[in-house]
Parts: sequence; structure tokens; C-alpha cells
Amino acid sequence: MSKRRIFLEDIPLDEARAKLQAALESAGKAPPTPGEPVPLDEALGRVTAEPVRAVLSSPHFHCAAMDGYAVSAAATLSARETQALPLRLGVDAFPVNTGDPLPERTNAVIMIENTNQGDESTILIYAAVAPWQHVRLMGEDMVSTETVLQINHPLRPVDLGALAGCGHQSVTARRKPRVLIIPTGSELVAAPERPKRGQLIEYNSLILSSQIRQAGGEASATDIVGDDESELRRALSDAIASGPDLILILSGSSAGSHDFTAQAIDASGELLVHGIAVRPGHPVIIGMVAGIPVIGVPGYPVSAALTGELFIVPLIRQWLGLAPPEFSTVEAFSTQKIASPIGDDDFVRVALATTDGRLQATPLQRGAGVITSLVEADGLAHIPRFHEGVDRGGTLRVSLYQPLSLIEQSLLIMGSHDPMLDLLATHFRSRPAGRRLVSVNVGSLGGLIALRRGEAHIAGCHLFHPESATYNVPYLQRYLPNEPVALVTFAHREQGLILPAGNPNDITSIADLRRAHVINRQRGAGTRLLFDHLLAQHEMPAAEIAGYEHEEYTHLAVAAAVADGIGDCGMGLRSAAEALGLAFIGLVWERFDLVIPQRRLETDAVEALLAVLRGDAFKRELGAQSGYRSDETGQIVSE
Amino acid sequence: MSKRRIFLEDIPLDEARAKLQAALESAGKAPPTPGEPVPLDEALGRVTAEPVRAVLSSPHFHCAAMDGYAVSAAATLSARETQALPLRLGVDAFPVNTGDPLPERTNAVIMIENTNQGDESTILIYAAVAPWQHVRLMGEDMVSTETVLQINHPLRPVDLGALAGCGHQSVTARRKPRVLIIPTGSELVAAPERPKRGQLIEYNSLILSSQIRQAGGEASATDIVGDDESELRRALSDAIASGPDLILILSGSSAGSHDFTAQAIDASGELLVHGIAVRPGHPVIIGMVAGIPVIGVPGYPVSAALTGELFIVPLIRQWLGLAPPEFSTVEAFSTQKIASPIGDDDFVRVALATTDGRLQATPLQRGAGVITSLVEADGLAHIPRFHEGVDRGGTLRVSLYQPLSLIEQSLLIMGSHDPMLDLLATHFRSRPAGRRLVSVNVGSLGGLIALRRGEAHIAGCHLFHPESATYNVPYLQRYLPNEPVALVTFAHREQGLILPAGNPNDITSIADLRRAHVINRQRGAGTRLLFDHLLAQHEMPAAEIAGYEHEEYTHLAVAAAVADGIGDCGMGLRSAAEALGLAFIGLVWERFDLVIPQRRLETDAVEALLAVLRGDAFKRELGAQSGYRSDETGQIVSE
Repeated sequence: MSKRRIFLEDIPLDEARAKLQAALESAGKAPPTPGEPVPLDEALGRVTAEPVRAVLSSPHFHCAAMDGYAVSAAATLSARETQALPLRLGVDAFPVNTGDPLPERTNAVIMIENTNQGDESTILIYAAVAPWQHVRLMGEDMVSTETVLQINHPLRPVDLGALAGCGHQSVTARRKPRVLIIPTGSELVAAPERPKRGQLIEYNSLILSSQIRQAGGEASATDIVGDDESELRRALSDAIASGPDLILILSGSSAGSHDFTAQAIDASGELLVHGIAVRPGHPVIIGMVAGIPVIGVPGYPVSAALTGELFIVPLIRQWLGLAPPEFSTVEAFSTQKIASPIGDDDFVRVALATTDGRLQATPLQRGAGVITSLVEADGLAHIPRFHEGVDRGGTLRVSLYQPLSLIEQSLLIMGSHDPMLDLLATHFRSRPAGRRLVSVNVGSLGGLIALRRGEAHIAGCHLFHPESATYNVPYLQRYLPNEPVALVTFAHREQGLILPAGNPNDITSIADLRRAHVINRQRGAGTRLLFDHLLAQHEMPAAEIAGYEHEEYTHLAVAAAVADGIGDCGMGLRSAAEALGLAFIGLVWERFDLVIPQRRLETDAVEALLAVLRGDAFKRELGAQSGYRSDETGQIVSE
Repeated sequence: MSKRRIFLEDIPLDEARAKLQAALESAGKAPPTPGEPVPLDEALGRVTAEPVRAVLSSPHFHCAAMDGYAVSAAATLSARETQALPLRLGVDAFPVNTGDPLPERTNAVIMIENTNQGDESTILIYAAVAPWQHVRLMGEDMVSTETVLQINHPLRPVDLGALAGCGHQSVTARRKPRVLIIPTGSELVAAPERPKRGQLIEYNSLILSSQIRQAGGEASATDIVGDDESELRRALSDAIASGPDLILILSGSSAGSHDFTAQAIDASGELLVHGIAVRPGHPVIIGMVAGIPVIGVPGYPVSAALTGELFIVPLIRQWLGLAPPEFSTVEAFSTQKIASPIGDDDFVRVALATTDGRLQATPLQRGAGVITSLVEADGLAHIPRFHEGVDRGGTLRVSLYQPLSLIEQSLLIMGSHDPMLDLLATHFRSRPAGRRLVSVNVGSLGGLIALRRGEAHIAGCHLFHPESATYNVPYLQRYLPNEPVALVTFAHREQGLILPAGNPNDITSIADLRRAHVINRQRGAGTRLLFDHLLAQHEMPAAEIAGYEHEEYTHLAVAAAVADGIGDCGMGLRSAAEALGLAFIGLVWERFDLVIPQRRLETDAVEALLAVLRGDAFKRELGAQSGYRSDETGQIVSE
């Protein structure tokens, strides 16, 4: 913790890019890579390194464009509809098929449909033909020496066809930029090794090498380098010796790594940038060592992936002679207020949905360690430096990660998340031309509020109402007074006590909780309401329950806390207990409903979803899951 | 020519697609392909065949999110800013780095910045911490058993990272659909064989196999099958035996092929479709043989490529569980009237340019044999069945083949085309963040008209004015009276007599043309005006010149006609003669100018183009070309 720190101040994104460009230019590394010959059948997606000229004309002879007879146009001048002109076969007229070369001294083709047979050796024609009628002229498509493709052109299927058609068997394409990736971090292990407690799987090298390949480069990774300065210096010096176009040093998530990277670059070359005012992604490092750019990539996977998009992919494309990649962008309304640090370029992952004709963006505001927030994102909203963020309802410019049509066809379900909603999504998506069902977890109450604001199509809800001992209905009247809704049962699911594996304390009922240390859910959670209700039934005051004040926010967090020994009992779903291999005592089957506004019931998307929900295939698979019942699935509770 | 013809009537596109779908469904071939295990580092772009669940939680233990000390939150409650609380190292507080697992019975991390050292074995804290502060909870990103990716999801770099992060080393991806391609046509030869007169290079199999690979399928091609029915039947039966998902029979351009394909399908299976009302692409054939779909692809390359886009790529994607591919579309104004057969779905290749803020589409109206019309197209306008076309200025919906930003940054030059404009385009494109220079050949006069209508940015012009014996200036006053323009010299180029190789008739001057058979240019062409002027100087009446009435439309067409022995002399560019290896007698150096509206002179794009035009690199390379002079290149003739 007392190591020398050489953290520089964060500099703006544009400035960091400019510094990198200036360094590349002074090292002579800014221009595109040179060309290399690539056979046409391996050249799809490669980029031309020079303009390509036709070797042969295409066609390389005048040829018939129709089936019929080749003639000299001048010899047909006297033909009239009322006065057939006979032409001698083999002398004035020559039978040709489409594609045949024109015989000498002919310059037009008469379609076979426009002729009649005269005697055995003549045909009759009824109109003069113009020179070159129904003839594909030599070079009609490409003339020898003509430029067929420009420089810096990414090769598409038709381009390859054109090159083959004018006599090429290979093309001079830009050499793929080569990137060497050095993952670092003593806490990391590479697959197939299983991580022990305290270890993490190294996967940033897979993300970055895939981004590089997708952009048209080549990537390879070294073994993981531990948090040891001399080991890293040795790895960097080996990397330099292998002569790549770019070296990436991937930090682990532990603290030491960044410093080692900056120090290693500083020691053997020039440290240009150490920290960029970009969120997520701050600790990006850029340097030049022996004329090779070296980028230090932050360890959190979201930061690593964004560093790839912002710095590495554009650099690969520059070396291929291409402009930075372009995302389609859309304007969307933010469903939440987003505060953004004024000095940073802030990139916010968002889920998108079209509700009532408005494209709405819901920020997936989670840590840079949560790679699934990028996996689930429909796009990335950029809040530029010098902007303070947006208010709820404000507009965001979003670069799309998914086609807009897929987003427009998606159903967005917000509220409480049940893992079996993913199963419903799978069945929904598996149909021909299947749609997406996207779920965002904001809790049951949050779902009703999202529905009221028109931000979601459907809400997932399991709110227990202790006074009436019923689910959901009383809350609809309170939270959606002006929105007539249908309540459709999704599933019954088993709630109960999540216990350490083997149930070492022999807890079998609520009454036994007097001798347990519990993990509780947050106030307002459906499961908390249920727990309080059960305690009241057993006349057990909360004050007598050790750990009652310890709150977690999801079923799985409760299970994780039990698995980790932080408590020894928690209320939650059987599925959460079984997911982590814990013991479970079932207490209650509760109803989880879908809340669907009446006005959406007859939309194509909702009708299709209800058909899947009520279909045998889904109900059978749902009912077979441990802790779930599907006998009322799809039934309407209230309308 | 008397073979049995089984041409059926063309049916609409939608009907053809529906017939294919119905046949696939009844053969059980409509659903996606099954899954196969694919290692993650080979899975980029593959499509999931099932939902993927986490094997391990990530992180799989509670860990520190900051550098500092792990503590039990409950033990910090009495800390105040004014009353430091000492914590015993190794008892109440444990040093942790980011990523370290939390020691037992701790549930929060205090950042190192918020502590002070007490004595050797204690630290001091000044505020209570909440439970789980600065802690990444076990499963924060992914919890074991949770669905991480849905079915039918194309794998991106971040998806691969997420899969690796939750314990996967491979993924179950849809098997790539396998397509077997049978090229047919006795006139075809495969590279590297050189085509003789009457032969054409077979390249449709390269276009189609590339389309298939790009869509995510696998393609292989057989040897070329001649126009022989029994040979084709044998090839089809071998293909069936190899068990592909799809068979393509590519017709040659000669007449017989189509019939053989239909007959071969008809003989061994069911012929579903024989002719589709699509332009270009009419003679598409669809059938089912032994439960395998067989598509007969038309021989003209544009028709073949469009058949790939309309039928084959969507089918590959269907087998991968994906929706048909989506092109970005834009609305553009047509610069020409387009007549469209009312019964056809008409697909028109267009060049796009933004002039004066309007996106303008210029149809590339050339034959289905001209693959370069697809190569050069910026997009494809669809004029649906039951529409008669559009008027000039009418709107077209265009599917984009190029990014809109590239189109918006392009300069469009219309008018006479000089091959050296391609050289200028290469230099323009080679600059960092280079732009495109697109040229469309409509003749000098056509270019001036396009400029007047605001359809082009620049016109290329070499109009000789016999009365004043000058170039271009008099025409500007006539055709662009209301548009102040600058006339900038592009090049001087050598015009003269194009003659057969070796000049067998010993033609050395205009006077010698009395004993030649000439090839002329069309009325209104700059070169025709020049030719007439030279004849007049020599007092040679046109009537005395054999072949004077024979008109061609380009320099290269004149050269091709000479090369093919249709005439034995023509007026044209030295570069055209040399392109085809012909003899040339130089007569005149003419000036080719760029006509640039004054109001465009100071746009970024035109300024950049003029900088390239006037730069040493371009002028040197232009001047080194045979038949070109660049000493006045870039000079302003008039403003």
C-alpha cells in the first residue's frame, strides 16, 4: 500500500486521443498497414490497400444478350412488317444463344421471337434492327485497365465477384493489424482452471481479442502475469521484441496493477496518458515503447470493453484505412434523472423500449464490474463532458447495440424479477420471427410506478396485502387508479426458509427462528411483508429475532449471505436456495402476477406473449421447475 | 433451340417466398439448425441454440470494491468525526485490496483515505459505515443458474466475456447451415483458367458463397457442370447424397441452362416456382428434392446477387434463428424518371449524394450483366409491385449499401468521365479520414444539366467550341446562366486516332482516313465535335468517310470496336487505345475541366479536393500517365 504512485490527472477523452495520434505520427505509425496478396475466396471483409484495375475486359468480346440470330444491322434496313426480308443462314444470319460471341461482321442480334423460318436455309425478319441491339458490348461491365475498386474499400461479396470477373485471383489487402494482449493480476486464473475463493476468471482478454478480430485485426494473448513489476517488465520487453502493431496490458481488479503498468511503460518508453475523464474507464494508460503504442486497459470488464470501443477498435480501423465504426443512433427519453460528473464523458448503458410510440431509455446503472449490464444494454447513451446529466423525461442520444426493429418489437416487463420470466422469454423468442421479452428488475412497487408512467408494457408483481391476506389487487387500486389493467397469473412459487447446506441448526419452522441469526429483505419488499405476516401469526416480535435489521435486496442476495455464513437463515424462494446448493424449508406458495394495461391486451405483442404463457409447452416446463406451479398460469385474476 | 420448355408464369415475390416456406415446413426443414458445442474463442458471431445459464456466480465471493480495511459495519457505529474510533488490525479491521475476498464476519470496507494510523496495531476511523459499503456482493454480476444469454442470440465480444466469467468454456451454437453450389454453363471457365473468346469467368459461385458465409452459413462449390441434362442430373443427385441444407444451381448466361435446372428438379422432386416477378432476377427456380430445398439462380451476376439477398441470405438466417437482415433505409429524391413494370417488384441500383441538403438518388440503369453497377451502388431502391415507378423528383425508399455518413461526405462528379478521375478519387480517399469522390458518367453536357438541377457537386467537362476554338467556357454561359461557377483545369489529355495494333493500314493523319472504315462517337459528344472540326480543317466532307454513321458512346467502346475489327480507326484518348493494346496517332491535346459552382468552392469537401488536385503527389502521378499532362492541373480557367 506504500508503493510509489505515479497517477497523473485525468485528461479529457479528446485530448487523450490527440496525444496518441501525435505520438503515432511522430513514430511513423499513423498510416494504414501495407498490402499483402489475399486469395479472393479468403478476402471477404478485408480492405483494399490500393485501387484495383481490371486485368481483362468483361465481357472480353461482343456477345449476344438474347437468343436469336446475329446479323449486320446495315443488312436489315429494308425489312418491313408488310415486307419480310429473307436472310441466308450462315451468310447473313447466324444462330446465337445468349452469351455467344458475335460472328465477324455482325453487330446486332434479332430475337428469335421476331423471326420466322423461310426455306431451310433462310429466316424471315420484319423490321430493321439498330446496330448493337441485343448485344453486350465488349467491356460493357469492365474494361481492361479501368479502376474497379478504390483504395481503403472493405470487400463485399459483389466486390469479390467483380474482381474475379475482370481476371483477378487475389487482391492486395491491408495486412491485419497485430495486437498482443498481456493480462495481469495475481488474483486472476485462466479457463479451464476453476477459480478458488479470492480468485477471478480472466476474461477481459477474450472480450478485447474478439473486439479486435471483429474490427479486422489479429489478437493473441500471453499467459497471465502476476502483480510483480519485474515480471511485467519482462513480459513487456518480450512483447516489444515480437513486433506487434499494438500492445495491451490488461489490469487485474486489484490495486497494484495500474501502477506497475504505468511504471513499466515509463521505465522503457514514454508515458503519454495516465487517466482519462471517461466514465466508466478512468484508469486508462497510454504510452509508446520502442515505437509501439501500449495501452493499459482498466480491469473492470465494462471499463475494459468501453476502452476497446473508444480507443482500440478505432485504432485498428485507422490502420485498415477506415473511419471509426459507426453506430446507428437514436434519441430516447430518459425514464430516470441521470446525474453526470461535469468533467467526464459519461457513457450510460441503457435498456430501450417503445411504449405508446415513445422510445424510452432506462439506465442500467450498475458498477463497472457488471459485464451483464453491457450484455443487456440495447445501447450506450453518451453524456458529453460539460453536461451535468439529464432530468427524467429529458432526451438522450443513444448508440444502438441492437437493431431498432428488434427493440421496437420488444416487450418490456418491469417490476419484481422472477427467474422464470427468463424461461418465458426463451419460449417467446423461440417462435418463428420471435420477439424479445426484456425484463428490468425494479421491485414490484417500482413496476407499478413504471406502468403508471408509461415506461413499461407489463409489470411483474407479487405484493402481499396482510389486511386482506391477498396478493396484488389492493395495490392496483392504490397505484394505478386511472389505468384499467388485467391481472394475469404468471406462476405460483414457493417461499420459505433458506438455510445452510445440510441445515446444521435443524431449523424446520418459523418458531425455530428464535435460535437463528436471520438475513432479512428490505422494507417494502413483497417477501418482507410476507415474513412479517408469518412472524405475527406466530406471535414472534421482530425484536426477538437476531439479524432482523440486516437487509438484502434480492432473493439471491439473501441466499448468498447464508452461503457465505453471514447469517444462518433467510426468507426467500426455493429456486434461490437451490441455485446456491442450500437447504430449504417451504412455507408458503405465493402468486406472482403480470399486470397488463387493458389497452395493451389486444396488441400483437401482448397477444403473442399470452399465447405462449398459456401454451402447453411453457406451462409444462414451468411446472417442472422445483419451487414453481403452473396450474393457474395464464388465468386472469381480475380485469 | 427446339428443346422442351417448361417455363411457368412469373409469380409474385411474396407468393414465391410463401411456397418455399410451406414446402420447408412440410419437409420439417423450417426450424433452426440444432446446436453444437463451440469453444468461446471461436464463437464470435455464432448464434446461441439455447439459453445459457451461469455455471458459477460472479464474483463467487463477497469482495472488496476499494482498497482499505474490511470491517463489521456494526462495530463502527460509534465512530464520529469528532471522536475517532480505534479498530484493532487483524481483529476488528483487515487490510484489503480491491478484489480481495472479505474476511469472515466482516461486511463492509472503509476506504484507506478515510482512515488514519493509530498505534502500530490500530487504525482510526471517523464515521460509521453502512453494511456492504464498498463491497462487491457475491453474484453481483451473475448468480449461478441465472439466465445470462437468451436463445437465438448472435454472440458479441461482451457476450463471450460474460460466458467465460460465469464458468463456460464453450457455448451451444446453432450448426452453420451448409450450402452446396453447382455452377452450370458450358461457356464458363473457373479461375485460374483464362477465358478464350466465347468463354466467361465463372464468379457467381464466389458472390453467393461469400453472401452465405457473411450470413453465417458454410458454402462449397462443385466443378462447373456443362449444359448437359444428364450431367446436371448426376451432379444434383451427388449433391443430394452429400446431405446439405440447401442446394444452389447457378445457371450460365446461355439459354439452355434454365431449362435443364427446372427439368432436373422436376424429374427428381417437386418444382415449386419457375420464374418470379422480380427485376432483375426473373428466372429464379425453386424446388424441393428429397426434402432438400434447391434454388436455381439466374446467370446474370446482378440477378444472382439479388437472388442471394432476397432468398438465400434470409433462409440462412432463418436456420440460425434470426430475422431477415435489415438494411438501414433512407428516403431520397430520384434525379430521373423511373418507369417500372407494374407487375414486378423492381429493385433499382442507385448512387446517392447529398447536394444542398437533399439526398438525391441517381439510378444506375444498366443491364443485369453489369456487376459493377452493384459494386458502385450506394443502395437499392425498391419499387414494389403495383407501382408504376416514380417521376423525376419523386421519393424513393433506398436500402443502404454504404454508411449514410460516408455518402453524406462524398463528392459527386457527373459529366464526362475521364479514367484519371479514378486516380484523383484514390488520392482523395487515401488521406486520413479520406472522403469518397464518386463519378457518374452522363457526358459533358449531361454534367452541366445535372449541375443546373443541383444533382451533382461538380461536373466533368471537355466541350470543344468550334466557332471560338476554345473549350467549355461558351457552354457555361448557355447552360448555367444563373449559376456562377469556377472552371478548374483537371488535365490536358491527348486525343487522336485509335488504330489496330501494329497500324496495318499505315494511317498517320486525318487525311489518311479516306481509306479507312471509321468508328465515330455519338452526336453531341465532345470528341465528335473535335472530330468534325478536324475533318473540316482538312476539307474532308463526312460523306466521304466510310463508317462515319457508326456511333459509339465512350472512348473505350470505340477502342473495343477497333480491337474487334468492326472498324479500323476511331477518334479517342491515347489511354483508351493503350488500355486495349492498340496503336495510336496523337493529334490534339484537349483540356478537361472541372466545373464547380462558386457557392461550393469554400465547402470543406471541395477545398479538400482542390488541395489534393493541386498537390504535388497527384500532379506528379497524373503527369506520368501516358496521354496526360498535369502542368496546368488545378489552375482556374475562369471564375
